[in-house]
Amino acid sequence: MTVRVGVVGGGQLARMMIAPAVELGLEIRVLAEQEGMSASLAATQVGDYRDLDTVRAFAREVDVVTFDHEHVPQDVLRALVSEGVAVHPGPDALQFAQDKLVMRARLAELGMPQPDWAAVTSADELQVFLDAHGGRAVVKTPRGGYDGKGVRVVNAATEADDWFAALAEDGRGGALLVEELVEFTRELAQQVARRPSGEIVAYPVVETVQQGGVCAEVVAPAPRAGIRLAQVAERIGIAIAEGLGVTGMLAVELFETVDDRVLVNELAMRPHNSGHWTQDGAVTSQFEQHLRAVLDLPLGDPSARADWSVMINVLGGPSQGTLDGRFADAMAAHPRAKIHTYGKAPRPGRKVGHVTVTGDDLDDVAYEARAAASVFLD
Amino acid sequence: MTVRVGVVGGGQLARMMIAPAVELGLEIRVLAEQEGMSASLAATQVGDYRDLDTVRAFAREVDVVTFDHEHVPQDVLRALVSEGVAVHPGPDALQFAQDKLVMRARLAELGMPQPDWAAVTSADELQVFLDAHGGRAVVKTPRGGYDGKGVRVVNAATEADDWFAALAEDGRGGALLVEELVEFTRELAQQVARRPSGEIVAYPVVETVQQGGVCAEVVAPAPRAGIRLAQVAERIGIAIAEGLGVTGMLAVELFETVDDRVLVNELAMRPHNSGHWTQDGAVTSQFEQHLRAVLDLPLGDPSARADWSVMINVLGGPSQGTLDGRFADAMAAHPRAKIHTYGKAPRPGRKVGHVTVTGDDLDDVAYEARAAASVFLD
Repeated sequence: MTVRVGVVGGGQLARMMIAPAVELGLEIRVLAEQEGMSASLAATQVGDYRDLDTVRAFAREVDVVTFDHEHVPQDVLRALVSEGVAVHPGPDALQFAQDKLVMRARLAELGMPQPDWAAVTSADELQVFLDAHGGRAVVKTPRGGYDGKGVRVVNAATEADDWFAALAEDGRGGALLVEELVEFTRELAQQVARRPSGEIVAYPVVETVQQGGVCAEVVAPAPRAGIRLAQVAERIGIAIAEGLGVTGMLAVELFETVDDRVLVNELAMRPHNSGHWTQDGAVTSQFEQHLRAVLDLPLGDPSARADWSVMINVLGGPSQGTLDGRFADAMAAHPRAKIHTYGKAPRPGRKVGHVTVTGDDLDDVAYEARAAASVFLD
Repeated sequence: MTVRVGVVGGGQLARMMIAPAVELGLEIRVLAEQEGMSASLAATQVGDYRDLDTVRAFAREVDVVTFDHEHVPQDVLRALVSEGVAVHPGPDALQFAQDKLVMRARLAELGMPQPDWAAVTSADELQVFLDAHGGRAVVKTPRGGYDGKGVRVVNAATEADDWFAALAEDGRGGALLVEELVEFTRELAQQVARRPSGEIVAYPVVETVQQGGVCAEVVAPAPRAGIRLAQVAERIGIAIAEGLGVTGMLAVELFETVDDRVLVNELAMRPHNSGHWTQDGAVTSQFEQHLRAVLDLPLGDPSARADWSVMINVLGGPSQGTLDGRFADAMAAHPRAKIHTYGKAPRPGRKVGHVTVTGDDLDDVAYEARAAASVFLD
């Protein structure tokens, strides 16, 4: 019997699971939000992931349900689990990726290093936090943010008035998350994979460079990361995966601070942009690893295959009609570059692909990757 | 506009084009011989590749037609070309892969090193060749053979009587190919990729180990291959690709003889078993390279990514019910091994998958690959 994996969500993360699924001999089925999405080759169904009947019908035809994103509602997830569906990561874990306040509280219980934070329900409470933290802070909506959306740096409590108003209208009450504005020297990301039966492996910690709240570049492994930093990051990743009961891939976004601490910024319980380098630079890609993990198959070697890998995101630009001509230009000038595209229309700012280069000289690898990706710029 | 590639034939070579097609942002469509074949994920049509109307309807929906095998008849190929379809490799090149006598005659014109050979139409003619070559030779049916089928070592002219009888019944006349029995120390394979516009790249020459006429193991690059041998093999590959007008991937199977010559054994104009190691061991896999070449896109870097790669074929065995349990065993014991499976029922002797390991120590890499593949043996 062919093993069938069902992925809820038809974006590029689902798309990039197709290649390893084919090579592993798995059947991959995708529940896409609409026709013509990135993962359309494997899309067997189009429908609303918030609708229990839709997701239930999809789940009935597969051996495990996993995700391209973390937005499937808890009541849908819990209904599936109660009906005996294998869901990985499960709702108990996903709640921490779905609500940043729940995540902060749980990480505090686990003793994880974090920025100072608080749950605030009013401008007055926010002002108290601001007064205690030099008058500036980061305010986040606990739910629904990604790629910099739902995140705002504020200098005065009134700057979050619209979000407090939206919370009040929502009717469910609730609070905003406020966090100290961390003075960091750089951002890192630690990925781990964990099987339901407990096996866990850790990838090398990487450096991520964000631009406008969106991941622009990843260097693997993180340059100038001594053994201590690598160990600290790995221990944090493993402790969170185990403490939160994550199954599949977990990405932990980290700040390295000016005073040499490592603090947890965000979590993602799925393959993650910070791990795209693993397709070309690791023995086992994060997409293959995620499939192995959610199926409770033995995990693959997460080691790097080259001394250095550099991954650059390709974003849609205002005057890109089609990317086709640019691909040929990039291929011609950069035969070493691995070019990945997501089959998406190149709207401005949208992630439409990425380029990875590997090798043994970081300057050379980074130059080549940036040069290849720059062909796609306007 | 998304670029569409049409692959005629639904076997594992078409299947292994799916992963790079997805990553390159191409749409891949497959004309499969029947339902449920290896490449079924991309199969948009099921039909007979010998039927012009079937192939024409398939070709109408794609930008280029290429192949999983070399069996599409010349009249079908030529009709497509005359109607303006981009077919790569084209019929002028494919004829040399479809008929071993035509191939031998053309390679002779090109001055390529070959075993002694002759076209024989009767037992008497075969006996003349045998008498001139120590009483033993290899007889081949010019068309339709693969994996050792249509190949026979004979010690007497009467041992090919059934094939001469079949030729006579065929009505088209024709001859058998007879070749000297080469005393070789080992078999090698040289792959090159060539675009319609002429760009050509060569992969490192590899050593192939055959068992029962079927490829069992590939070591890349070929051990103990000096610069001279690598250059000779590369020059032969390039000369044949250019001389025969091959577009896409070309594999040249070679004998290395006891007196240090390199002779051309067979040709394949498609991705080839001797190049499966490139999925995990080269910057650009043969499957990605084939797609780039047939689309006349700039070719990728064919360099090896590791000092050594060893690929072992997994064949179906008599008592394998399903491979699933064995996959988990192999994964658990060999996390470095890259396991590829073709989604085929494991009938005895059938190629159902392969395992590749890469690294910097050949003994270690070969041991690990053989150990991982042995988990699938009965």
